Amino acid sequence: MARKKVQKIKLPKAFRAKSKLGKAPGAINYVGGRKEQLTKISLLEYTNDSLKTQYPRPLKLKESISNEMTSFCNVVGLAQENIIDGIGKSFNFNNLLLEDVVDTFQRPKIEEFDDHVFGVFKMLYLNQEDLLVVEHMAMVLIEGTVLVFQETEEDVFDGVLNRIEQKFGRIRSRGADYLFFALLDAIVDHYYIVLDEVKDKLELLEEEVYNKPSEETAKRIQLIKKEILRIRKWIFPVKDLVNRLIESEHQLISKDTKLFLKDTLDHCIEINEDLTLYREMSTSLMEMYMTSVSNKMNEVMKVLTVIAAIFIPLTFLAGIYGMNFEYIPELHYQNGYFVLWGVFIAIGIGLLILFKKKGWL
Amino acid sequence: MARKKVQKIKLPKAFRAKSKLGKAPGAINYVGGRKEQLTKISLLEYTNDSLKTQYPRPLKLKESISNEMTSFCNVVGLAQENIIDGIGKSFNFNNLLLEDVVDTFQRPKIEEFDDHVFGVFKMLYLNQEDLLVVEHMAMVLIEGTVLVFQETEEDVFDGVLNRIEQKFGRIRSRGADYLFFALLDAIVDHYYIVLDEVKDKLELLEEEVYNKPSEETAKRIQLIKKEILRIRKWIFPVKDLVNRLIESEHQLISKDTKLFLKDTLDHCIEINEDLTLYREMSTSLMEMYMTSVSNKMNEVMKVLTVIAAIFIPLTFLAGIYGMNFEYIPELHYQNGYFVLWGVFIAIGIGLLILFKKKGWL
Amino acid sequence: MARKKVQKIKLPKAFRAKSKLGKAPGAINYVGGRKEQLTKISLLEYTNDSLKTQYPRPLKLKESISNEMTSFCNVVGLAQENIIDGIGKSFNFNNLLLEDVVDTFQRPKIEEFDDHVFGVFKMLYLNQEDLLVVEHMAMVLIEGTVLVFQETEEDVFDGVLNRIEQKFGRIRSRGADYLFFALLDAIVDHYYIVLDEVKDKLELLEEEVYNKPSEETAKRIQLIKKEILRIRKWIFPVKDLVNRLIESEHQLISKDTKLFLKDTLDHCIEINEDLTLYREMSTSLMEMYMTSVSNKMNEVMKVLTVIAAIFIPLTFLAGIYGMNFEYIPELHYQNGYFVLWGVFIAIGIGLLILFKKKGWL
Amino acid sequence: MARKKVQKIKLPKAFRAKSKLGKAPGAINYVGGRKEQLTKISLLEYTNDSLKTQYPRPLKLKESISNEMTSFCNVVGLAQENIIDGIGKSFNFNNLLLEDVVDTFQRPKIEEFDDHVFGVFKMLYLNQEDLLVVEHMAMVLIEGTVLVFQETEEDVFDGVLNRIEQKFGRIRSRGADYLFFALLDAIVDHYYIVLDEVKDKLELLEEEVYNKPSEETAKRIQLIKKEILRIRKWIFPVKDLVNRLIESEHQLISKDTKLFLKDTLDHCIEINEDLTLYREMSTSLMEMYMTSVSNKMNEVMKVLTVIAAIFIPLTFLAGIYGMNFEYIPELHYQNGYFVLWGVFIAIGIGLLILFKKKGWL
Amino acid sequence: MARKKVQKIKLPKAFRAKSKLGKAPGAINYVGGRKEQLTKISLLEYTNDSLKTQYPRPLKLKESISNEMTSFCNVVGLAQENIIDGIGKSFNFNNLLLEDVVDTFQRPKIEEFDDHVFGVFKMLYLNQEDLLVVEHMAMVLIEGTVLVFQETEEDVFDGVLNRIEQKFGRIRSRGADYLFFALLDAIVDHYYIVLDEVKDKLELLEEEVYNKPSEETAKRIQLIKKEILRIRKWIFPVKDLVNRLIESEHQLISKDTKLFLKDTLDHCIEINEDLTLYREMSTSLMEMYMTSVSNKMNEVMKVLTVIAAIFIPLTFLAGIYGMNFEYIPELHYQNGYFVLWGVFIAIGIGLLILFKKKGWL
Repeated sequence: MARKKVQKIKLPKAFRAKSKLGKAPGAINYVGGRKEQLTKISLLEYTNDSLKTQYPRPLKLKESISNEMTSFCNVVGLAQENIIDGIGKSFNFNNLLLEDVVDTFQRPKIEEFDDHVFGVFKMLYLNQEDLLVVEHMAMVLIEGTVLVFQETEEDVFDGVLNRIEQKFGRIRSRGADYLFFALLDAIVDHYYIVLDEVKDKLELLEEEVYNKPSEETAKRIQLIKKEILRIRKWIFPVKDLVNRLIESEHQLISKDTKLFLKDTLDHCIEINEDLTLYREMSTSLMEMYMTSVSNKMNEVMKVLTVIAAIFIPLTFLAGIYGMNFEYIPELHYQNGYFVLWGVFIAIGIGLLILFKKKGWL
Repeated sequence: MARKKVQKIKLPKAFRAKSKLGKAPGAINYVGGRKEQLTKISLLEYTNDSLKTQYPRPLKLKESISNEMTSFCNVVGLAQENIIDGIGKSFNFNNLLLEDVVDTFQRPKIEEFDDHVFGVFKMLYLNQEDLLVVEHMAMVLIEGTVLVFQETEEDVFDGVLNRIEQKFGRIRSRGADYLFFALLDAIVDHYYIVLDEVKDKLELLEEEVYNKPSEETAKRIQLIKKEILRIRKWIFPVKDLVNRLIESEHQLISKDTKLFLKDTLDHCIEINEDLTLYREMSTSLMEMYMTSVSNKMNEVMKVLTVIAAIFIPLTFLAGIYGMNFEYIPELHYQNGYFVLWGVFIAIGIGLLILFKKKGWL
Repeated sequence: MARKKVQKIKLPKAFRAKSKLGKAPGAINYVGGRKEQLTKISLLEYTNDSLKTQYPRPLKLKESISNEMTSFCNVVGLAQENIIDGIGKSFNFNNLLLEDVVDTFQRPKIEEFDDHVFGVFKMLYLNQEDLLVVEHMAMVLIEGTVLVFQETEEDVFDGVLNRIEQKFGRIRSRGADYLFFALLDAIVDHYYIVLDEVKDKLELLEEEVYNKPSEETAKRIQLIKKEILRIRKWIFPVKDLVNRLIESEHQLISKDTKLFLKDTLDHCIEINEDLTLYREMSTSLMEMYMTSVSNKMNEVMKVLTVIAAIFIPLTFLAGIYGMNFEYIPELHYQNGYFVLWGVFIAIGIGLLILFKKKGWL
Repeated sequence: MARKKVQKIKLPKAFRAKSKLGKAPGAINYVGGRKEQLTKISLLEYTNDSLKTQYPRPLKLKESISNEMTSFCNVVGLAQENIIDGIGKSFNFNNLLLEDVVDTFQRPKIEEFDDHVFGVFKMLYLNQEDLLVVEHMAMVLIEGTVLVFQETEEDVFDGVLNRIEQKFGRIRSRGADYLFFALLDAIVDHYYIVLDEVKDKLELLEEEVYNKPSEETAKRIQLIKKEILRIRKWIFPVKDLVNRLIESEHQLISKDTKLFLKDTLDHCIEINEDLTLYREMSTSLMEMYMTSVSNKMNEVMKVLTVIAAIFIPLTFLAGIYGMNFEYIPELHYQNGYFVLWGVFIAIGIGLLILFKKKGWL
Repeated sequence: MARKKVQKIKLPKAFRAKSKLGKAPGAINYVGGRKEQLTKISLLEYTNDSLKTQYPRPLKLKESISNEMTSFCNVVGLAQENIIDGIGKSFNFNNLLLEDVVDTFQRPKIEEFDDHVFGVFKMLYLNQEDLLVVEHMAMVLIEGTVLVFQETEEDVFDGVLNRIEQKFGRIRSRGADYLFFALLDAIVDHYYIVLDEVKDKLELLEEEVYNKPSEETAKRIQLIKKEILRIRKWIFPVKDLVNRLIESEHQLISKDTKLFLKDTLDHCIEINEDLTLYREMSTSLMEMYMTSVSNKMNEVMKVLTVIAAIFIPLTFLAGIYGMNFEYIPELHYQNGYFVLWGVFIAIGIGLLILFKKKGWL
């Protein structure tokens, strides 16, 4: 069961090139796999003392946002390109930015504009059936507001929402940049879960390699190696992006929040190191597997050799006394047959001792 | 069929050295393989409102270009060196630049001159028979004009031409530097198609390795590895070149266009990462192939050993009772023959159970 | 016995992600494995002339510290989160710092604040049973005081305490920054012991590979490889941290102490180089192991081939004269049997000489 | 024949250390292998309009050089150390420079002095018998003059001399720095020939590996790998040297010439990339070779197993009916013999079908 | 004989950690293996015109040094820690420096102090029995004086002493910084000898691998690989140190001497490149060894298969006519026996031809 998860992460086949080709740069064109997901908008606003939730219509979104509160505006479902476009236009976002919002192939990135900071990230998490899900998301930090675009309603941000609603921790008393950080931090925290899953699988495979290696084991090791390479593709760039945020002098990001971002940076560094570690571990596993294959072949060969080495000479001896020469003196000895059995047993035991000494038994 | 494509990309044999040796630097000398292609010139000029196409003669090209419109001048066919030279002279290009225009071995490069920006790129695309084609091309950005030199009339730029003609997107309302970017972007977009092709082949090979590996499979994996190395040679430098364009302070490249170039840079980074990924995947495939070869040998060895281990001792036993000793008591037992069959079967079944336990069956 | 130590270093399974998820950043949450350890505080204060030891209660700690003496305050046991929190609050430490104090998954780090310097390190040492122990620890350097948080009372700092008590070396005459350095130096010195252990094991394994390689040997080589990877994870970052301390311009770290830190830096560089060296040595060992497996298989194959090659033809010959044809002239020769023995022996010796020449015997 | 070329490049054995040891730095000491080559000097001088060739005696060289013309002074044969010393002294070169001129072990280098630029390079070319030759050379650029020191009269510079004599290209109209560039460019151009040779061999080996791999093939692959490593040693540093020339602010190198040097830099980058590519190709070849060895062994094993699996059971059966039991009922059946043949054939065909299905035939 | 040298370089076992643990930083504690070597001091002083040798007592050393001459003070034997301490104190050296003087585990380092420059290096050389020796040494450059601390009187500096005594080269006319350089250069020159030794062994091993590979060969290749790793540890850092000296602005190092140091830097770079080259060569050798093992196994398998494939079917045939069926018609044919021999020979020859065609013979 845990096995099947591996195959889940598959890049959609030959899709990127065909869907983009010939399109002008900046065309807003959703290329992901959740095409039926209708776009839903929720707007959560809070100050230290108050909390308000709205579900505004897309074109009313901009004006629904209050200036006095910190706003967390969540746009779920990216398939209705015209709605995304409409929201983007109302906020005066440039077209290339909107293209990245719906381009599920876009690598993680951070871009700073005069009055907003834009980021694209990949959310990795395990769904209810414990399968790995990769979800494209984009965040825009504007004065007092964080706008999130994501493909499905999933639980990566539940912890953050909880903290806002429960007034837990310092999130209610801080501004939009802290919210931006908290969301990013939640995404990175979920990477740990995926890594733990990978580590888990590696440890299962390690046991399998040591105890019952089969060709299936080798395939699974290769699959997890490939999985690590792909996870790495999505997670690796995040470190540099967070670092850039920390070094940025954008007015929307306060010095205080940067202190927290340093913590996130620390996590990103650790995640990248772990990925490298897991990759080397999978290489070691493959090596160990090959070793066990060789050792098994060795064992098989030894059994064959011991049996052949003992019985082939004996068969030869028996063959000799099966010959029909007129005059074979031994055949007429009274105890010839029993003497020969003695010889058979002596040769057999002698060879067994020899092989024992060679360490083949 | 898809197989044969791989062999297509071959560096022309020992050609570079011989064709250049002893020539002065700056000699204009076409060394590509499309020597019969006559040089054809087309000149597409547009403003936001109007569109004009001309086919001027080479020496009239310079004067045919209007100052009020953005001009896209396309020179197809590089074998007629004197024509290239003539065009170059009329634009006052330096000789080294012209050498690079016709030197199909030239690596991708960007060079900035006082009043023009010069770039060499490789176009990779699949032709009508779906075979991979590598085409050398050079672009010059002059005030209001983009001059393109390419070897054959092919469709890499069709999307761009379309957008100009259909007045689709923002291309008509922007200047020559945007056109320069759009062409570069079209080249890079085609790299994705080639990469998709590579990914496709890798996935086919993966299936082959897992299901029916043969020596042919190994050869194909090595071939695709080599193909990846070569594609990398042509694509890899582009990233740095685009980056240099973005950081350049050349007056011909507007800040606006640089924003778009950042997008292209993003694509280049992704393409390079994918190439690295595909390379590691091909290494993994080779490893998996070797594993399956070892496993097969193991299986063969086991069959041999099981058969030999069972029948060699039995044959020995049969040989014993084929001996001609005068006095072999067992031979005279009434049921000796049938008892012996019992022993044969007991030994056989015993060994089978033993091998079953060892996991060899 | 020495063997079992390897398995000791195990990252707690899937723990990090689950224990942190959904918690606000800065939550003080001990995640280590020494949960029953009560928090104990000792306060050692000294000047060049005097020495004083106290065991203050947590909330009295801050006020117990004398301003005229250098104070070494040792907090052992991190499981009582409220006590840690209390101490932290009394010193005005920020929450993220306190989170790192109890987060046993935290990588080594150095952070500079306005009036204190904070560091997290991993202590690696062998306990009384000679098993490897990894212990999380945090140090804070404040004006005149070093505050140490560690999980258990162990002997890494014994040497330093000794030098303070015995007035040995220059430690009594120097300030808190020298104490900070001395503790860090003691941690790094213990890394050498762990490395020596690793080197020791590698040398034992080397002997094993050369003399009596078994499948166990391969597993042990892989285990030590994994161990090196993990030790590296904890030790590797220290070098950069020490370097940052040396380049820091924090007022709490005197130029004199930096001279000593350079020495520690030297040690860190050497330790990292040694780890790299040991890793390459373990790779070489694995290679050597594979070679010896191949060589053994070769030897087995040769024995099989020699025996089969000698006796199979002889058995065939014997089989011929066991045939029941009515007319086989050789059977009636007087000395046929003895001549045939001559032939058997001649063939056997001839083949033995041949194989000797081939170097198979 | 093409094969033997590989062995040609051999570092002279244990020579460097012994020939230099105990010598003061700056001792002029020719350590190359062309000791009988007498030193010959030729002096070619030219302006745009005139051309003059002289063969001055060593001590007259300095005064023979005209101030109005560009001079190309070629010193061939480095074994007569006193002559080299004399020339050096007359130009006021420092001793370390002269040591490098005759030290054939010296790596490629560029050094700038107040009034001259000094460079050491390795010329690689194929001689008349198509064998690879490595030749040490040094160049000094002085105001209006390029002084070349080389070991033998060979044809690397023929193209340049030709262009000077034929007034071909721009060389006659430019100064000594352009000549310096042209010579360097000629050296680099010859690297392409050597690389083409390497590529050629790699392609031959590729064919060999795919069609008729033998142990010789493996040795040849290893040899070419070693050759690539060694060529790399001589070519690799050149890139950085050319780059340093381009960035140099030495008054002797004009901005114009730097433009040409950029072209050479481009070539150096490409050559280095190609070397890396060829190295990876040779690694791939070795891998492919190992694969084919494994596959062959597999094939051999299958043949053995099929034959043994078919005939060993049959022989056992035949052995049974060769036994001498008094009562074996089958022996008395009228058609027992023919029925048994039927059984033999049935078993044989059955096993053949089985192995066919397994894909072993 | 040349073989045994390899084992010579062994890091003393588990020594570093134990000897240093718990010691205060700066403790002067000789940990090397030449404990019986008494400390001897010689003082060689020279100007261009005069030369003077003294053997002062340790405490008189400082005052024995003349201010007008360049002094080369050689302290041999580091085991008498109090003497080293005394000398150090008289020169006002700091304790950490003195610790490094006697700490034979210390990596190569350069440290600049206000009025002296301190360096630690490893001397590698072959002793009279041609065995490799690693010797720890330290040098201090003071105004007008170079102080050398070394473990034994060995010949690395003989060449330099000679040049001073013979007034050979420029050494007598230059100051202490040139002497410092000359000694460093002598150390680096000896590295070449060790490298030549390594190259020599590699070439012997190469021959062995190609002609008579045995398991011993594999062990030797691994040993030399390990040796290269260890030599690298001692030599590798020197490059950066020399570079730092060149870029240093310490008043004791003149611009002139830096010119010479650049030469030494060149040598260091070359040595490092060679070490890398040798390492890759040893990897290639191991690969080649594995290839030859595989090829041998292939050969053995072919012999076994050919013999088994020919004789097993023949034995079966012979077995058939050894059966005791009442009615076997062939047995009664007059020439049955001879016909069967014909069949035997035909089958044998047919299979031989088949195997010949397959290339197995």
